[in-house]
Amino acid sequence: MLIQFVLTKKSILPLISMGSRALSMAKAQEPLKPSIKTAVPGPKTKQLQQELEALQQAGAVQLFADYDKSIGNYFVDVDGNEFLDAFTQISSVPLGYNHPELLSAFDNQHNLKALINRPALGVFPSGDWPDKLKYVLMPHAPRGLNNISTMMCGSCSNENAYKAVMIWFRTKQRGGSLDFTPEELNSCMVNQPPGSPDLTILSFEGGFHGRTFGALTTTRSKPIHKLDCPAFDWPVAPFPRYKYPLSEFQSENQIEDYKCLEQVEDIVQQYNLKGKSVAGVIVEPIQSEGGDYEASPEFFQLLQGICKKWGMALIIDEVQTGCGPTGKMWCHEHFDLPSPPDVVTFSKKMLTGGFYYHCELRAPQPYRIFNTWMGDPGKLILLERVLEVIQKENLIGLVNETGKVLKCGLHQLEREHSALINSVRGRGTFLAYNGCNVEVRDKINNNLKKNGVLGGVCGELAIRLRPSLIFQPKHAEIYLDTLRKTLKEM
Amino acid sequence: MLIQFVLTKKSILPLISMGSRALSMAKAQEPLKPSIKTAVPGPKTKQLQQELEALQQAGAVQLFADYDKSIGNYFVDVDGNEFLDAFTQISSVPLGYNHPELLSAFDNQHNLKALINRPALGVFPSGDWPDKLKYVLMPHAPRGLNNISTMMCGSCSNENAYKAVMIWFRTKQRGGSLDFTPEELNSCMVNQPPGSPDLTILSFEGGFHGRTFGALTTTRSKPIHKLDCPAFDWPVAPFPRYKYPLSEFQSENQIEDYKCLEQVEDIVQQYNLKGKSVAGVIVEPIQSEGGDYEASPEFFQLLQGICKKWGMALIIDEVQTGCGPTGKMWCHEHFDLPSPPDVVTFSKKMLTGGFYYHCELRAPQPYRIFNTWMGDPGKLILLERVLEVIQKENLIGLVNETGKVLKCGLHQLEREHSALINSVRGRGTFLAYNGCNVEVRDKINNNLKKNGVLGGVCGELAIRLRPSLIFQPKHAEIYLDTLRKTLKEM
Repeated sequence: MLIQFVLTKKSILPLISMGSRALSMAKAQEPLKPSIKTAVPGPKTKQLQQELEALQQAGAVQLFADYDKSIGNYFVDVDGNEFLDAFTQISSVPLGYNHPELLSAFDNQHNLKALINRPALGVFPSGDWPDKLKYVLMPHAPRGLNNISTMMCGSCSNENAYKAVMIWFRTKQRGGSLDFTPEELNSCMVNQPPGSPDLTILSFEGGFHGRTFGALTTTRSKPIHKLDCPAFDWPVAPFPRYKYPLSEFQSENQIEDYKCLEQVEDIVQQYNLKGKSVAGVIVEPIQSEGGDYEASPEFFQLLQGICKKWGMALIIDEVQTGCGPTGKMWCHEHFDLPSPPDVVTFSKKMLTGGFYYHCELRAPQPYRIFNTWMGDPGKLILLERVLEVIQKENLIGLVNETGKVLKCGLHQLEREHSALINSVRGRGTFLAYNGCNVEVRDKINNNLKKNGVLGGVCGELAIRLRPSLIFQPKHAEIYLDTLRKTLKEM
Repeated sequence: MLIQFVLTKKSILPLISMGSRALSMAKAQEPLKPSIKTAVPGPKTKQLQQELEALQQAGAVQLFADYDKSIGNYFVDVDGNEFLDAFTQISSVPLGYNHPELLSAFDNQHNLKALINRPALGVFPSGDWPDKLKYVLMPHAPRGLNNISTMMCGSCSNENAYKAVMIWFRTKQRGGSLDFTPEELNSCMVNQPPGSPDLTILSFEGGFHGRTFGALTTTRSKPIHKLDCPAFDWPVAPFPRYKYPLSEFQSENQIEDYKCLEQVEDIVQQYNLKGKSVAGVIVEPIQSEGGDYEASPEFFQLLQGICKKWGMALIIDEVQTGCGPTGKMWCHEHFDLPSPPDVVTFSKKMLTGGFYYHCELRAPQPYRIFNTWMGDPGKLILLERVLEVIQKENLIGLVNETGKVLKCGLHQLEREHSALINSVRGRGTFLAYNGCNVEVRDKINNNLKKNGVLGGVCGELAIRLRPSLIFQPKHAEIYLDTLRKTLKEM
């Protein structure tokens, strides 16, 4: 089962430039190709699903995994099926399965002790915690954002970003004063203004920002995510829906940008007028759960201008796009924003939740952006290894290389099977295409799985690719071959 | 620095019954007593605080720790000071620092791989995940609660408990139908009823349930936790404020119970009438952040009756009280409730967040109680060891034993220094006492620290004890001696 490189001329150069670790990884025993031995799902998965169903709602489970055997880009299930993984746990596995650098991270006793003695980081951090933030997280901070708070997951990163924005906004309204009025102190205890102000965060149709109540209020992906849960009356604006290929619809798509941005301003004005001031705008660089909808750099540049004009903070939600998969560390780096966004939130491939922010958004008092754990040092130890590997092996270069192969191949396939798929789009390996309708989309995705490739669906029509950062051109070729086979079988 | 047992007659029996592991723990190199070598905070802590302050609001940091040297009940800081830890990271360290069973948990390759290959548990759990839930979490489930969902932290456990309750309540309103109306499907996407219904959760004055927007709405501890954050208009009711000692104020305290419960019913009726139906009530068995306020078993029994009468779910928040510190696995077991509560949430000492619930509260569709990670298998591996040690070493027996020594000693001290402290209360080692005013309270807690004991404050006047479960009578004696010294110095 030793790996074989099938290198194209185009792909060999970046691999060579990656140095010795890439070669050591190449020796890992990834299967040569997917191998499906049972029905999918197989009998063991079905049995385990019943067992899990006895304890909780398990209807979302697709496969039970064997993480001892999963390796690199290959996910192995309990039935012994070996899948090429182009979904990677909803985009949250940066270096594939069982990467040797992660397996050895806790050989070091200091790291092991940091893992098992999990502190209340806001009160009793370890002596090396400032350095961990400084040398692990800050070298990768989006330009201009020099503050960092670690959190537990994407939802709580966004929730705390909203809190930071609300506190900043109210502090501005107080003219910078750090004193609270007796009325504020009393009214907040009964959830009433002015202490609990009627501030809002604007989000976009199709946006996904998490599932706790504040985050869920801004999530606009699907009814099943929101039904039966109370939500704040916060504003929503349309997000561009482009026509593809982009090169053919430039002016239509630009008009779409302007139409959406005009609505943003109208809606902000409405909410401000009705006493529900918009303190911030949250936006994904690519709407990742809502259907992989992208918008142009110009859209984001103009959106930032609107935020500045109306005194709103711009929060970029990079929970799914962050940490390299779009071909830059942060997807919003593609947009050449005139100035840094105010907040950038992250999780998933970063292994820890958290947010970077402009120093103006730092809470002026302690215990306001706070909870017991405030993140997890054990995750930062793993993240440190991940970021080292990304740099030493030039994995962002690999993402761009592999992304080109993938996107080019997907364009070829949408030409070959234009009755089945269309609208290939995305950046790096963070790509998607639409099925011609929801039934076809679901069937393609299910059959891809039966043919040995794990992918994900999102939004109404999209199939999304979310491979790890070690997905090579040869894996792209397997994905494309399997998709071609799947489309031919339709 | 080998440990010396100073055993009283009363304490030796349970220790002997604990078997060999307790003795192996006894060989760990815990200091004999606290040892303070510098000012507190020391120069290294002060230097690190400046470094951290460059990156985030660090005003809540008390000490920087040396977790390589911290051991058992002793927290060692970067300045080499050795503190007896009666606060344990806001009550979240079950077995003290560097417990050998936790240090060895990832020697096992299978466990290590479960740690580093963190899955999206709701979609691709490992093959042993159903067994992990069944054999680690379910044997400790509160009686009658046979469903479990793991989460990331206390806040997200409560947020998801609220969602489960809302979904259950709305499903009841639909007569059990699993279909949504077009109006519901559309309105939820713009955060309006009926899709986003105006349901509420009742919480209590002084309650603390977390800091994300839903949880924060129910949190009623201190203004600084809530200021500037929008909150739902959800109801709040008074929680009993007892007079101490309990034995002298039985009838007054019972009247206090009835007065609060009467208000609960009034407020529920008001909210139901104004179209903001109360779907659930959340309550801590002891209000842990709000000031260690306790209520009688009768209060909780009657509260459950009110919940049943009005069709509301009863959520017991055991985030801080759960996992043994009150002398039972779950504090609400002290209350002899006529039937199980509907939901019990946990985190902190359990190392993973999550909630147990009655099968009626299981979401009828997938993807409703859901997020990417849904917990963390690495934490369950540690929790498995924790629960094994608790059982094999009868640590809950030890909590009761040590708790008696502590409480008895605190009562003695409140008699000796009645001008300074009063209102000793609590269960197990989950104890508290009040300072006579806030300045005195803060000074006692600070001076305790300077004298080598870490404690925590909560509410307006309380100093709380939150030792780990391996806190022995000899540690209680050190705590009491240090407190006596501190009080004498006042």
